[in-house]
Formats: sequence, C-alpha cells, structure tokens
Amino acid sequence: MAASLIDSAVFRDIFSTEAMRRIFSDENRVQKYLDFEAALARAQGRLGIIPKEAADEIAKHCNSAEIDLAKLKTATERIGYPVLGVVQQLVALCRDRLGEWCHWGATTQDITDSATVMQIREALTLVEADLDGICGALAALARKYRDTPMAGRSNLQQAVPITFGYKMATLLAAFDRHRQRLGELRARVLVGEFGGAAGTLSSLGGRGLETQAELMKELKLGQPAIAWHTVRDTIAEVGCFLGLVTGTCGKIAFDIKLMMQTEVEELYEPFHEGRGSSSTMPQKRNPISSVYITALTSVVRQQVAALLDAMVEDHERATGPWEIEWIVLPEIFCLTAGALAQTQFVLTGLQVDERKMRANLDLTRGLIVSEAVMMGLGPYLGRQYAHDLVYDICRKVVSTGRTLVDLLAENAEVTKYLDRAALARLCDPANYLGEAGAMVDKVLRLHERRS
Amino acid sequence: MAASLIDSAVFRDIFSTEAMRRIFSDENRVQKYLDFEAALARAQGRLGIIPKEAADEIAKHCNSAEIDLAKLKTATERIGYPVLGVVQQLVALCRDRLGEWCHWGATTQDITDSATVMQIREALTLVEADLDGICGALAALARKYRDTPMAGRSNLQQAVPITFGYKMATLLAAFDRHRQRLGELRARVLVGEFGGAAGTLSSLGGRGLETQAELMKELKLGQPAIAWHTVRDTIAEVGCFLGLVTGTCGKIAFDIKLMMQTEVEELYEPFHEGRGSSSTMPQKRNPISSVYITALTSVVRQQVAALLDAMVEDHERATGPWEIEWIVLPEIFCLTAGALAQTQFVLTGLQVDERKMRANLDLTRGLIVSEAVMMGLGPYLGRQYAHDLVYDICRKVVSTGRTLVDLLAENAEVTKYLDRAALARLCDPANYLGEAGAMVDKVLRLHERRS
Amino acid sequence: MAASLIDSAVFRDIFSTEAMRRIFSDENRVQKYLDFEAALARAQGRLGIIPKEAADEIAKHCNSAEIDLAKLKTATERIGYPVLGVVQQLVALCRDRLGEWCHWGATTQDITDSATVMQIREALTLVEADLDGICGALAALARKYRDTPMAGRSNLQQAVPITFGYKMATLLAAFDRHRQRLGELRARVLVGEFGGAAGTLSSLGGRGLETQAELMKELKLGQPAIAWHTVRDTIAEVGCFLGLVTGTCGKIAFDIKLMMQTEVEELYEPFHEGRGSSSTMPQKRNPISSVYITALTSVVRQQVAALLDAMVEDHERATGPWEIEWIVLPEIFCLTAGALAQTQFVLTGLQVDERKMRANLDLTRGLIVSEAVMMGLGPYLGRQYAHDLVYDICRKVVSTGRTLVDLLAENAEVTKYLDRAALARLCDPANYLGEAGAMVDKVLRLHERRS
Amino acid sequence: MAASLIDSAVFRDIFSTEAMRRIFSDENRVQKYLDFEAALARAQGRLGIIPKEAADEIAKHCNSAEIDLAKLKTATERIGYPVLGVVQQLVALCRDRLGEWCHWGATTQDITDSATVMQIREALTLVEADLDGICGALAALARKYRDTPMAGRSNLQQAVPITFGYKMATLLAAFDRHRQRLGELRARVLVGEFGGAAGTLSSLGGRGLETQAELMKELKLGQPAIAWHTVRDTIAEVGCFLGLVTGTCGKIAFDIKLMMQTEVEELYEPFHEGRGSSSTMPQKRNPISSVYITALTSVVRQQVAALLDAMVEDHERATGPWEIEWIVLPEIFCLTAGALAQTQFVLTGLQVDERKMRANLDLTRGLIVSEAVMMGLGPYLGRQYAHDLVYDICRKVVSTGRTLVDLLAENAEVTKYLDRAALARLCDPANYLGEAGAMVDKVLRLHERRS
Repeated sequence: MAASLIDSAVFRDIFSTEAMRRIFSDENRVQKYLDFEAALARAQGRLGIIPKEAADEIAKHCNSAEIDLAKLKTATERIGYPVLGVVQQLVALCRDRLGEWCHWGATTQDITDSATVMQIREALTLVEADLDGICGALAALARKYRDTPMAGRSNLQQAVPITFGYKMATLLAAFDRHRQRLGELRARVLVGEFGGAAGTLSSLGGRGLETQAELMKELKLGQPAIAWHTVRDTIAEVGCFLGLVTGTCGKIAFDIKLMMQTEVEELYEPFHEGRGSSSTMPQKRNPISSVYITALTSVVRQQVAALLDAMVEDHERATGPWEIEWIVLPEIFCLTAGALAQTQFVLTGLQVDERKMRANLDLTRGLIVSEAVMMGLGPYLGRQYAHDLVYDICRKVVSTGRTLVDLLAENAEVTKYLDRAALARLCDPANYLGEAGAMVDKVLRLHERRS
Repeated sequence: MAASLIDSAVFRDIFSTEAMRRIFSDENRVQKYLDFEAALARAQGRLGIIPKEAADEIAKHCNSAEIDLAKLKTATERIGYPVLGVVQQLVALCRDRLGEWCHWGATTQDITDSATVMQIREALTLVEADLDGICGALAALARKYRDTPMAGRSNLQQAVPITFGYKMATLLAAFDRHRQRLGELRARVLVGEFGGAAGTLSSLGGRGLETQAELMKELKLGQPAIAWHTVRDTIAEVGCFLGLVTGTCGKIAFDIKLMMQTEVEELYEPFHEGRGSSSTMPQKRNPISSVYITALTSVVRQQVAALLDAMVEDHERATGPWEIEWIVLPEIFCLTAGALAQTQFVLTGLQVDERKMRANLDLTRGLIVSEAVMMGLGPYLGRQYAHDLVYDICRKVVSTGRTLVDLLAENAEVTKYLDRAALARLCDPANYLGEAGAMVDKVLRLHERRS
Repeated sequence: MAASLIDSAVFRDIFSTEAMRRIFSDENRVQKYLDFEAALARAQGRLGIIPKEAADEIAKHCNSAEIDLAKLKTATERIGYPVLGVVQQLVALCRDRLGEWCHWGATTQDITDSATVMQIREALTLVEADLDGICGALAALARKYRDTPMAGRSNLQQAVPITFGYKMATLLAAFDRHRQRLGELRARVLVGEFGGAAGTLSSLGGRGLETQAELMKELKLGQPAIAWHTVRDTIAEVGCFLGLVTGTCGKIAFDIKLMMQTEVEELYEPFHEGRGSSSTMPQKRNPISSVYITALTSVVRQQVAALLDAMVEDHERATGPWEIEWIVLPEIFCLTAGALAQTQFVLTGLQVDERKMRANLDLTRGLIVSEAVMMGLGPYLGRQYAHDLVYDICRKVVSTGRTLVDLLAENAEVTKYLDRAALARLCDPANYLGEAGAMVDKVLRLHERRS
Repeated sequence: MAASLIDSAVFRDIFSTEAMRRIFSDENRVQKYLDFEAALARAQGRLGIIPKEAADEIAKHCNSAEIDLAKLKTATERIGYPVLGVVQQLVALCRDRLGEWCHWGATTQDITDSATVMQIREALTLVEADLDGICGALAALARKYRDTPMAGRSNLQQAVPITFGYKMATLLAAFDRHRQRLGELRARVLVGEFGGAAGTLSSLGGRGLETQAELMKELKLGQPAIAWHTVRDTIAEVGCFLGLVTGTCGKIAFDIKLMMQTEVEELYEPFHEGRGSSSTMPQKRNPISSVYITALTSVVRQQVAALLDAMVEDHERATGPWEIEWIVLPEIFCLTAGALAQTQFVLTGLQVDERKMRANLDLTRGLIVSEAVMMGLGPYLGRQYAHDLVYDICRKVVSTGRTLVDLLAENAEVTKYLDRAALARLCDPANYLGEAGAMVDKVLRLHERRS
C-alpha cells in the first residue's frame, strides 16, 4: 500500500524507474550503512585499531538481508535516527561480543552521509547512462534531419525556416553541457564523511586521519579535507544539476507537445496500440511522455529549492535541514530518472512528419520568409525602410489572403530592384536556412569529440 | 521496496501517518474511482438513462478488491491514464455485457477529479482532527502556564519577560485561524467534477445537468457551476492551506529546538528511554520531533509552489500541469500529516522547566527589565532621554558584571525620582508581565467560542 | 538608476503599475509609520496617557514630506531598522521636547507591522478593483460568445466542440471565487499590531489594552487578540491569495498564446500600431501581454514559497524570516498588479475570430465529433464496442484524409442503426455543444448575485 | 520613488550594493545593447558587410547617454521589447541614414542575450571579489583561532569540543569550492548570442558565421556552437551557483545568530555605536547582518527555482519563460551581492569571545567530554557496554548537578581501569580536540594552493 506516486503499484514505472528506486530503497540504504561498517572494520582491522578477528566477524555480517527492517523501524522511531538501530542488530549478529568493535569512532552522520554519497554515485551512473542515451538519440535526429526544413517559431508565431536537425542540435548542445557538468561535479561530490561526533575524529586517539584515508580507499570515495556534516553545498549542487537536466527535458517536452497539436501535427510520440487514446475521444493521439516530463520537471525544480534550503544548517550537526535531504534526495533522483527515461523513450521513437513540416511552412503564403525579402531589399532600400515596406506588404498578405510573392511582384519600389524570379527564390523557405546545416555539423563534431 | 520516505519500511510513520497514507494509497484511489462509477450508475439507473439492471450489476462490482492492480499498472502504462484500465476491468467483471453501461457520458478526468476531491475530503477530516488536537494541547499549555514568567526573546536576545502561557496563546490564535480557514475553503473545494470530454456534458443528450445533480447527491459533493478540469484554484488553495498550517508547525518546532539548547534548557520534547540519544554522546537530549517538523515544513512549502504551477493549464484538459497534482497532492498531505502528528505529540507531552525559565530570566542581572526601568523613568526624564540613560547603564552592567538594580541605585539622576525599593520593584521580571495574562484569557475565550 | 524591473525607467509600467508602486514606495511606507505615530499620539492624548499638547504637536509633524530620506537611510544602516530613525526625526521636528512623548510604549515592529497592514489594505483595494474589472471583462465575453462554437482541446488535441463563451465562463467562475476569498481573508488580515517589546504591552502600566483598542479605532484596523509579531499566517495567507489569483491569470495567458499561434489564429491580443512587431519578422503578430503574465505568474508563485518560509520565525521577534517579507511583499504585490493589469488589458480588448474558430472545428473532417457518434451508437452497440468501432474508423479518417461522415456511411454496422442524414446531424459540431450555454448562464447568474 | 527594496532610497545599500545595482541599471543595460551594436558594426565594417563609414558613424553614437530613456519606455511599451526602441534612436542619431546599417542581420534577442551575458560577466567579477574577500576573512579566522576550544554542537546540544578555527575552516572549504565552481562555469556561460530570427544566421547570406566569430572577438565572449535563444541551461546554471553561494552565507549567518544569543554570547557582529540597538530594549546587542543574510538567502533560493522554470521555453523564441529571467536575474544578483557584502562585513569584523567559549564548554560539568570517557573505557568494557554505562552516569550528572569526573571516580566499574588523574585528563575538553588543528592546516593549504 504505497501512497507516493514513486512507489505506487500503478504509477511507479511511469514517474520513475525500477533501477533508481532500487538505489533509494530501504534495503540499499541499509546495505550502504553496512558497506560503511564493513569498510571501517576492515580498515581499522588492518591498522590494528580493532582486532583483526572482530573486523572479519563484523564484515561477515554486513549484509542487509540479515537486518530485520521491522525491528529497525521500531528502533528508528524510538531513537530518531536509523543508524544506531542497524549497529545494534549488527552487534547482536556477531559472535563473542566482537560486534562491539564495529562503528569504532564513527558518528551516526558519518555513516548516513557516506551512504548517501554512495547512493548518489550509483544514481549518477544511471543519470549518465540516460544522458548518453539522450545525446545519442538527439545526435541521430540532428544528423538524419539536418536538412529537413520546418518553421522556426518565435512567440508561437512562425518566424523563419529552420531545419528539424538544427532544432535537435540546439538540444544536443545542452545535453553535452550537462555531461560536462556531471564530469566536473563528481570529484567534488563523491567524497566520504568520517569525522566522529563533531567531525574532529577526537575519539580515535590520534589515529583518525589514518583511519579516514584507509576507509575512503575501501569505499573508493574521496577523502574530505574536513568534515562537511553541516556544510552541504555538494549535495545541493547535485540537486541543482538535476534541476538543470530536467529543465532541458521540460523544454523538449514542451516543443513536442506543441508540435503534436491537431493544428500542427509535425511530430508524434512513439505509437503503440492504445497509447494516448482516450476513453471518450477515439480520434485523439495524445502526448503522454511529454506530459509526464512536464510535470516531473515542475516538481524537481521545487525540490532544488528545498535542497538549497537544506544548506542553512546549524552548528556541527543540524536540527532539520539535514532531514530535508532525507525526504528530497530519493525523490529528486527518482523523478529525474522518470523524466530522463520518458525523454529517452520519446526521442528514440519519435515520429517525424516531414511533409507536414513543409506544409506548415507554406501556411503563411510566404510570410515566413518575409525576413529574407527584407534582407534582400535592405541593401537597396536601407534596413529600416525595407523593414517598414515589407511589414506593410505582409499585413496585406494577411488581409487579402494572397501570397507574398504576388504582392511583392506588384510593388514598384520592390520590382525596381528585384524581378519576379528573384522574388520567387527569396520566397522559397528552403533557400533561407542560413547556417543551419553548418551549425548542426559543428554541434555533432563537438559531441563526438566529447563522447 | 519503497524508495520514497513516505512509504519507507523504516521512516513511513515518522514522516507521515498510516491513516493519511491509506487515503492516498492505490487501493483507496481505485476505490474512489469505483465509488464514482457506482454512484454514476445508480444515478443514471434511477433517471432511466441506463438500465436499472446494469446499474445494479455495475454497483455490485465497484469494489477495489476485485481490481487487479498489476493488470491496471500495465494498462495505465499503455494508455497513459489509469481510469480506462479500471473501467475495462469493471466492464469485464459484469455479467451479460451490462458493464458497457458504466462510465456513461463521463470522461477520465471526471472520475479522477471527483476521486481526488473525495480523497481531499477524507484527508481534511484527518487534518481537522489534528488541528483540534493541537488547539487543545496549546489551550491546555496556555491555561496551565498563564502566569509562568520566562524571557521574551527578540533577535535571539532576551528582551522583556513574558509568560509561557502567553507564548502558547499566540500560537493557539494561529491554529484557531487555521480552523477558520478550513471551514471556509471546504465549500469551495468539496465540489465534484462531471462534464464529459470538454466539460459540456454533450454526450448525455440533454440529460447531463440532471445526471450531474443526482451524481453529486450520491457522492455528497457540491455540484459545480461549470467544469473545472483546467481551472484548479481550489486544488491549489488546499495546498496553500497546508502550507500555512505547516508554517505554524515550523514556528513551534523552531522555538522548541531553541528552548531545548544546552544553554537554555527550558523545554524538552516528551522523553522515553533512548529517544534523542546519540550513538556517541550519551549525555545528549536531542530534539527529534521538532527536527522532523522543520524538514517537513520546508518540503511542504515548495510543494505549494508546485501546486500553484499546476494552475497554469492549457485549454480544456491540460498537458502536464495536472500531473503535477498527481505527484504532489499525495505527498503534501502525507507530509503535512507527519508534521501535524509530530507537533501534536510534542505539544501534548511537552516538559516545561519553570525553574530554568526563571533562572534564565535572572541571567542578565536585570537587563531584561531595562525597558521597565526606562518606562518608569520616562515620565520624569522624557522617553528618549530615559532611553539613552538606561542604555548607558545597561552597557555598564554588561562590562562590570554587576546588577542593574545596584547600578541604578548609584545613579543620582535616577535616585532623584526613584528610591532603591521602587527600583527593586521595577527590576523584578515578574512585575513586568503587562497584559500577558489578559491576552491569554482573550485567546482562550475566542478559542472556546469557536470550538 | 533602478536595478529592479519593478522600478526600471523602461519596464516599470509593463511589469507593475504606478498605483501599486506608490503604495510600496519609501514615501508611503514612511507615511504609514507616521500615520501610526499620529494615531498613537492622538489615542494616548485622548486617554490622558500623554499630554494633549504633545499629541497635537506630534500629529502635526506626521507628514512624510518632513522626513529626510537620506538621513533616514544613514540611520537605518546604522541601527538596522528604519523606525527608530523616523522617530528620531519626528522627535526633532517637535517643539519643546514634546516629541519625546511619541512612540509611547510601542516597539519598532508594532509600527512596521501596522504600516504593512495598512499598505496591504490599500493594495488589496487595488487588487479588488482589478478582480472586478477582469470579472466584468470575462462576463462580457461569456455573454457575447455564449453560442460561438470552437474546438475544445484536451492534451492539445481537438477533443469535442465547446463555445468560446463557455471557455470564458470557466474562468469567470474562478475569478468569482477569488473575490470570495478576498472577502474572507480581509477580516483576518487587516488587524493591527501594538504590543510593545514582546507583545505584552508591559510598558504601558496597565493601560495597554485600552490604548490598543483606541489606536486600532484610529487606524480603522482590527484589534488583535494577542500579538502576532512572529506568528505570520495572515501575511503568508495574503501571499497565497496572490499566488492563486496570478495562477488563474497564467492559465488565461497560456490559452491566449496558444490560440494566437500561426496555426490556430482564433484570438489576438488588442492591437495597436507596432505592438507585437519584431525587428526582423514584419509578418508577426506576437502575444505580448500574455507573455508578461506568464513570467509574472512564475515569479509570484516562488514568492509565495518565500512568504511561507517567513512563517518559521523564532521567539517573540525573529532573526531573518521577517525580513523576507520586507523584500517579498512589495514585489509580490507589484508583480501581481502587473499581471492583473495585463490580464485586464488583454481581456477587455481581446479580438475574437469566430470564423477561424469554426474553420478549425472542421479541420479534422469530423473527428472532433467522434464522441458524438460514439455516444449515438452506444445505445445500439454498447459503449465499449461503439468506442472501439469509432476509434478504428477515426484512424481511417486520419490515414485516408476522407471525412468521418463518409466513412461512417460506408460502414454496415453503423448504417444498420443510423442513416446518412442522422450521421450528418451527429457530425455537425454545432449540434454537439451539450450544456455549454446553460452552464454559461449559471455562472453569469452566480456572478451577478455576488457583484 | 522606488517600490522594490533593491532600489529603495532607504534599504538599497542594506539588501544590495551600488556596484551590483549599477550593472543591472537601465543605463548599463542600454549601454550593453549599444556595445553590441557598436561591436557588430565594427565587425561587419571590417568584413565589408556594411560600409566602413556606417560602422564608424554607428559606433560613434553607441553611448547610453545619448539615449532618451523616457522615449525608450514609450517605445518598449508599444512594441513589447526594448531593443527595437534603442535601435530606432540609434538610427536617428546617425547622419545620412547610415544608421540603417546598424543591427544588420541581428534579432532582438541576440542583443539582449549578449547584453545579459556581458552583465553577468561584470557581475561575476564582483561575486568573485566577494568570494575572495570572504575566503580571506575565513582563512584569517581559521588561522587565528586554530586552537581555541569551544563547544561543538549537534542538534543544538553541546556534543564534543571543537576549535573555533576548525569551525571556520569547514566554511572556508565550501567557499573554496564555490570559487572552483565559478571557474568552471565561466567558459560555459560567457558565450555570446548571434543567430538572427531563429538562430540560423539566414539573413546574412552566407557570411553569418564569419560575422559571429568577429563579433564575439570584439565582445570578448565565447562563440556559440549553435543558438541558445531558448536553451537556457547556462543562465539557470548561474542562478544555481548563486543559490549555492548564498546557501553557505545562510549557514554562516545562522551559526552567528545562535552564538550571539544572550545565553551563549560567544560571538558578536562588528559593533559600532547604535548598531543592533532597539528603541525599547537598551541592553540588547542584536544580530543585524546575519538577519539580513538569512532573509536574502531565502529569497534567492526561490529565484533559483524561477530560473529553472525559465528553462522550459517554447520553440525558437519563447513566450514568457525568457521574461522570467528579465525579472529575476537583476534581483538574484543584487540580493546575492547584498548577502555577500553583509557576510564579508561580519566575518571581517567578527568579535570572538574566547573566554565565553571556554565557559560554555564547562557548562555541562564534563558531559561534553562524555564521548572521550566512553572511548577511553571502550577498550576495557566494550564500546556498547561503555556507552550504556557512561550514558547512565551522564544522566546522574544531569539529575544531581555534580560533575562527571566526580561521579566517574565513584564508580567501581570505572575505577577498576582508570584512576582519578586519568579521568581528569579525559574530562578536560582541551584534551579532546582530535584532529581539529590538522584539518584546519589541511584546508588552509588547499586554500593557498588555489589562491
């Protein structure tokens, strides 16, 4: 009986993914605690801080399957934090009171923070794979439709022609930046925590830093220069990164929805029987994934603000801001995973109607290339004057329903410089694609270099 | 294997409550869909729009236990929305194709919106009970400690004396306002949805409004003046209300945490063995519930912004904003339930150390009543002059470590008007409580009138 | 040299209004402080708490024109709060040290809070006028276009026909609810503050409540049951209200932008020479106001979250949360004023292209009334079966480019029950408007009753 | 008459700085537009795309002092965007219609985006200087108080001793990470925009990329691989960065406020006459800057969410999301500047009371080193057993008011292994600082390497 959509028996694979949920599951969280305890025991056993025998016995029992979650729930509710409850069970699992050597010199938050970082590491690996997948899909679309003309739209008005490949390349450039960001933040973020009660490692009698170094090697995490129990910029940075990534997903989804409109119909989400159908309107071909992405993006950006709020922590261990992360981190990752999966799904199977793109280009009877005409006349008439002249003719196109080329060919000021053939060339959208192709190539080259 | 904290096997009863989770569970959501279908069938059967026999057969199977959730998951993923999948199962459950009369003239969102409103109705009942409980606890504290002096603090500095009852009464006043708000919004919010594809009831051939009226009577929901499929102010209003309620919880939690500080120790959260203990620092008495409340409040306020975002919907059925509600509504209610439960728990068992409150009042050697002295001297010296004089003497109290009354008694300008006995009276915090008691009484009277 | 858009020499009347800016100007804020001081002096003079002569002298100088803002800036930077700087100037303006009787028993926040409430009162009056204006415009549109058919759209797909008046009426219903909310919150919000240092009125020697009552009568504000210096639900509630109001503006703007698309062209924002023109694309007719409203709505909803954050205040006078209100309240009101002004402007001058609405209805060759057909066949074939049959025929309409009525008329299962004439009737969108008109009338009646 | 606090005649230098406001002033914005136009003219003059004479004449008039802001306001309100109004004035300023060669091939958003990036460049330079200043102040504090013991606090409870230098070093580490982030994002963000109507440079007849390269050299901005008119991850990234930076400021402010409490008094904000005084409570020494920082941080984090919202743009030029940036970017930078200035001010003049820090360490009569005792006994008794034993003795310290060392010395289980002298050593907080000093040194070394 799940109440959150992330865990819902019905919705969980729509708004999230199983792989991401698994990372933030109770089982994996507990396992990460135990991974920490095992690593600490091994490190301290090796350094002679705890008996080797104890280290072995502890490590042997660091398996989440041995932990009773119901008992852990009770202990957590009693104590307020989950780690002690796990430690107590672990102690009890070990023979001959050897378990009492576990958790040596550590504080609750050392374990939870390091566990969180390990979960983040796993989660970022999933995110990276999705980014790669999306980049691949965008690159393929950019390449395939490099020269497919369509209406560029500004203010939801047809503006000038672009190509569909160009449109995809602008997004590919963004996702390549996201991959770059991910590369940069990893070193900052994937740093463990081990400092004891207030971060000074005081309980380890001078062997703290040594233990810390050894422990982080075990965990394959960076060693912190100093404790970060209440200095959470790296965690918030992860949230910001996810906010940026889903922001671009949201842009993609918005454009797809707009291009799927009955009146536009240039794109479709991947189709399969029944998808996007309605219980009452059998003709409809609804956007589905794009709709989910839109919602997910909205929720994620607010969670970014919550994670920024979590930075305002008090003293050496905080009273509430930290728990914001407890609530938000699993969700922001799970929802981002949903957004990325839906984005990848849509882009990979996107149905592109090139004929409809061309038909829409002709919808305004040439108005969409009015800029071409204006720029063509500019050298003769001056930019501003040409603008005003073409502007007036365009309004005539609107009011009369005739084509731009016809009205231009009737205007003496225009024909003084350009004859009908020249005007017809200016008025063909396919002749006014500018550097679209070159820009696509540039983005693809950059992309390949980074891959 | 739950990934969200709300459904976590370990944390679910810390950050939420079972009663609230049950309301937003898959089972209850599906049941609400079925309640709608049953009510619609009954209403239409009664009106002769569908055969009475069909109505009976449909209503008979409107039980969530008969719905296969795994199958529903698959259908929902295929179609994009859950209602059709439920309807298909319901149709299949009915004998003799009578089920085909179900869902007559309705659209997917009619069912989901009405179901959501029914969930909100149940959830607000829980919220109301919590508000009542919190009001009761605050009223009891206000009454009991009506005359218990403590330091009033401004800018985290001791300012002038108040009473603990007074402090509680300021919060009681807020919670009484919350109850008033709840009363006002219910009529606006508890309104059903039944409009068909675009809200116009076109598919019911002139019998739409009649059906709508009858259906809403069945559901005990208000009849809408017009469809609100994409006009979501009432849903967002519920979110705002929960944001306001948890905001006050957050204020309470903040004050309790501050008063539990080692250096203050005027209050304690309810104690039981082990609660608030630390794995490393056996002396500590940590705030626990207050910490959770702080985090919950932070997350809820971001969810309010998400629900406001969900208002910006397109046309007659939206492409994404609505799904924000799907994600956020269950969470904001579940987390609010957690915050309210923790608040009620803390207030009900709050341990108040009256002796320590008094001791802290004496901490500044009289500085806390400097205003009393200033006001006492004002009539003789002028307010501004008295302010400056007392201000200087106060700084001497700080620098010398002596008491205010001693230094005042040595100042000729002061003793010209007030002798030591008068000064001693002015310097007793218990004599400077103003209208604290009267205000407590006023708030309690208002509270009782509203209850 | 303004840095914020609200005060920008270029943008200020686009994103806000002069009337609202005036309310939140330095001058008006200072004037409100002085109004409080004057009212307090008058009240206390009348009660004999301060000399009548002092009251008169103080009240005489309570004019913001007499306050040196540059000096106030310096004092505010030195002290951290603006009120004392104003009081000091006021004291200096009064003859014979009579000014020292001003501010008697008050604390800084008494003045600032009461001043804020007075600003809110003025601001809500402006908001109410805008709500009335918008309601009027929506009612006029609903009435005028009560029977103008257009495509209802669900998921950005044409769904079933509605009327444009119906669309407007759904929004009118929301704005009427906003007016209702405004009515409810006023009594809660328009309450003054007067409690002294910690709210207990201790400095007034037993005459505090009497002074408070008299003062609030002077200010025409409600008398608080108890101090609310750090219990800010009423202020946050105002923010929530503005978030709800702009949320509906955002919905309107979104729909208008979509209907102004080149491919849709059913609506236009009010036109005047040059408006919405582009420096490069002379043919364009850009949405302008709708674009601003969209942005304003987005910013306002984040400010709501900030105001909810401001509720988490510490003790009797807070350390930061209160200042959130200082920053946010002027902005949220100024930006809301901008959104309301733009909304009213657009709605009042909206250009509606009824012909294009009809043309778009025919775009899908009958698909938009497929539901009508499905419901028409339901009684004969069963709803689910009819759905599946019509669904298949609709897909044939899409793939063949032929009309729905033609394909229906060729289907034997269909013609068994309905002949071509009956099918043609079913396929005319104007015959499938359901209760649209009746619902418009219902909303208008409710609206008129409330006005 | 300013309405926003940023521009307020009273508050502007409290919540922002003049240098940052200047960057986002109307004058500087217009100047940046003109810088772009001048650079474009020069580039195109050099390339022979426009006449050299025109380029010179245009560049000559690209001075914001020549632009009439009132006229620009009117034009902007008429057109909806400010650039065309500036261009029109510039054209008029040029002799012989040479101005018509200005803005050649550019679109409105090319200018505004590039101008924004130039403003961001200037603003980030200010931010960097503040980061350097704050790092310097933190490094100085870390160094000076490297060995000054104080209570480490966890959950607002005294936990174990730390040093004040250690506390500062944890923050220095964060600010050094912020400097690193700034270094990384600059190359991504400081990229110009020049693409024409839909970004394809179609209006420049094959000379677009050449012009773009030359223009960006003039502007000293990176050349974009492709247009980013509606792909705004870099702008949102700047917002995220500011959110992270202010988040750490907020943490600092919170700690300072807590340490300034009457009951703690370990720190004071820089003092000058009257600062932090109250009109009614002469004894108070209020936090001021910390209070502002708290509020600023709260507002900034919501603006981050707004900038993430601005990423969800439609097509090639958006309808609203872009304008979110117009409103938010000036504010987020101005408020961040305020937060950074206040943070630097506080840290530079911070008053540290080392004696009070020590006194507070002794407040719990040894409880704060209970962990030391527990760890000291662990090797003899086992960690868990020692924990439980010490835990019980600690509770006795609380209930009896006696010291930990006394009670330990009376316990037979304890004295079996440790005599009173050993216990006294364990109970001295100055002996339980762990690796605090070494960690400070490590952070300082890293800091120096990066500077």
